[in-house]
Amino acid sequence: MGGLPVNSLATRAPEAAAITVPVPLGDRAYEILVGRGLLQGAGARIAALGARAAAIVTDEHVGPLYARSLAEALERHGLRTATLALPPGEATKSYAFLEKVCDFALEARIERGDLVVALGGGVVGDLAGFAAAVVRRGVRFVQVPTTLLAQVDSSVGGKTGINSRHGKNLVGAFHQPSLVLADTAALDTLSLREMRAGYAEVVKYGLIDDASFFDWCEARWRGVFAGGPERDEAVARSCRAKAAVVVRDEREDGDRALLNLGHTFGHALERITRYDSARLVHGEGVAIGLCLAFRFSASLGLCPDRDARRVEAHLAEAGLPTRLNHVPGGCGTVEELLDAMAQDKKVKGGALTFILARGIGKSFIAPGIAADEVRSFLKKEISAAQP
Amino acid sequence: MGGLPVNSLATRAPEAAAITVPVPLGDRAYEILVGRGLLQGAGARIAALGARAAAIVTDEHVGPLYARSLAEALERHGLRTATLALPPGEATKSYAFLEKVCDFALEARIERGDLVVALGGGVVGDLAGFAAAVVRRGVRFVQVPTTLLAQVDSSVGGKTGINSRHGKNLVGAFHQPSLVLADTAALDTLSLREMRAGYAEVVKYGLIDDASFFDWCEARWRGVFAGGPERDEAVARSCRAKAAVVVRDEREDGDRALLNLGHTFGHALERITRYDSARLVHGEGVAIGLCLAFRFSASLGLCPDRDARRVEAHLAEAGLPTRLNHVPGGCGTVEELLDAMAQDKKVKGGALTFILARGIGKSFIAPGIAADEVRSFLKKEISAAQP
Repeated sequence: MGGLPVNSLATRAPEAAAITVPVPLGDRAYEILVGRGLLQGAGARIAALGARAAAIVTDEHVGPLYARSLAEALERHGLRTATLALPPGEATKSYAFLEKVCDFALEARIERGDLVVALGGGVVGDLAGFAAAVVRRGVRFVQVPTTLLAQVDSSVGGKTGINSRHGKNLVGAFHQPSLVLADTAALDTLSLREMRAGYAEVVKYGLIDDASFFDWCEARWRGVFAGGPERDEAVARSCRAKAAVVVRDEREDGDRALLNLGHTFGHALERITRYDSARLVHGEGVAIGLCLAFRFSASLGLCPDRDARRVEAHLAEAGLPTRLNHVPGGCGTVEELLDAMAQDKKVKGGALTFILARGIGKSFIAPGIAADEVRSFLKKEISAAQP
Repeated sequence: MGGLPVNSLATRAPEAAAITVPVPLGDRAYEILVGRGLLQGAGARIAALGARAAAIVTDEHVGPLYARSLAEALERHGLRTATLALPPGEATKSYAFLEKVCDFALEARIERGDLVVALGGGVVGDLAGFAAAVVRRGVRFVQVPTTLLAQVDSSVGGKTGINSRHGKNLVGAFHQPSLVLADTAALDTLSLREMRAGYAEVVKYGLIDDASFFDWCEARWRGVFAGGPERDEAVARSCRAKAAVVVRDEREDGDRALLNLGHTFGHALERITRYDSARLVHGEGVAIGLCLAFRFSASLGLCPDRDARRVEAHLAEAGLPTRLNHVPGGCGTVEELLDAMAQDKKVKGGALTFILARGIGKSFIAPGIAADEVRSFLKKEISAAQP
């Protein structure tokens, strides 16, 4: 780890060291490998899964950087390959592109033992993973996440899907990958905004149930951004945290909902800004959502004010938005926010479920929160003089 | 069983007796209930699953007969309902209608614990089941099959899906229902052609591994068509046979392929006739396919000729096609048939897999059958003087 940046797979450097995070899900068990330069050895590692063919799904930004090298490496290991590059952006997670990816995989004669390889960010991973779940009623797939958000969140745990006109990720499948390769060098080409957005999810894991990881984030976050060994450590700890929750509750019947800390508010903001990434990306919504979840917890008397302030201070220090009025173009009215929250898929039996906290690292699932409690909290948030 | 025909759910007859076929799939276990008049008690039985809401998916033929009564019964038991009637026919198993059904379920605010109810034939069951598998990454569903084909085949075992331009059922999910209600009185409104098509799948179960059931079919088939107690028995025995295979091999990694007896040829014929039901429906393709599978087995010296003749004689007696030249408009050339077979999803590693038989009730999976063997058999079939 921590070696020179690797910008080309053609460089024949020695195999990168990797941190291994096991995801022990019985007959769906797999490994997440985290390390700088992993893409170089990806051909061998993927070929070791024993497929005859791989359909590589990527996007038009990531494809030109890595897709050809990956395909050539797989072919050197005896796999037939085909590559499809999709338009980047959330709008690609649609029924139309699901059909396109499924057709592509069938055209590439992907059979039950073969692979779909998702090379890109969360959009590519969610869409290609869903296609892998449904082509021939399920073929294997490999996640090669190339954004921080995808490495620490969407590539782990088997949630795949597309968006519906009723909301984000409302149509999909639980389909575990056979392998996740998180090359932290791939993050060197991300914009600062994308790094920050992914970092919000890293911080989330500390806030859920690991106060010492939040302490570590406060002390070491600059190294995560700079690409030092801290980056690998942050990705691996995040994956380990998520894997632990997923293993306890693969299909989100219980504990897994903790991973939604900050997301009920965050999804509502994304919906209100119409998933316009010029205004708000997912991680920014999550950052504001994390702050709101802690302030809401504090306003209910559940959580010390100082913990809510500490969450906000750290996210702000890392350059993330933390308040409703940080949303460019506005966050809508209280009622618009409530409506947007009520449509969230985590609504159970008509009541609102929130993930709240008794402090940093002490989150819990709070079902049946009355809309009036949320309403008065949001009124206060919107009308307060903002720092 | 065997009571008066029940044509209206509004009739307040006493609850029909039912044969129960358990499908012991661990945490996905469920029951198939078979009986005349079951639709009358369907509201109570479905409500007992404990959902708050049910999205009923049906088609424009079946809907007018049963959908309103079923919805009213569910509402009397406290469930919120919504109903969607789709155009009947194989063309409905498309991406466009998948989107429509998912949107309908989301519009109806179907949550994780709620139900999609598939009320109709195989098209409705496959499509609505697939939608249930992917809406919110999986909600529960109930099959209320109203055709013989759906009662004995598609509603049992959890295969759901849609068609792709590359072939039938190439996109889908394994998603087990929570309950199957097979009301054999619903078959009273089927055309003779539809009954015959479903009956080919009934015969298949005897041919796979139960010679005594094939004997029973030869002796009792008229009762199945006439609607006597034989009908309930045939449906229940078929469901039991299929359930036994599915329990051994839920995801078709092995034995489940036996259920494809007759289907490699059958699917090729459906493809060649472009799924035009005016020319050939699935069960007719299966009937010809069963005969071809037995004659192919006999031509390879695996199966006695007399068994192949007995299969053909029984299917012909029941009014089903048994020869390639029974396909209206022709069955294509040998090479067209081979191409159509090679596209079948059961192709493994480029080799053709057939289900062959050593006799009635003695089928087995035969992987790696050389295309030349198939070619010379088909040549013989096409050029032979047909009876």
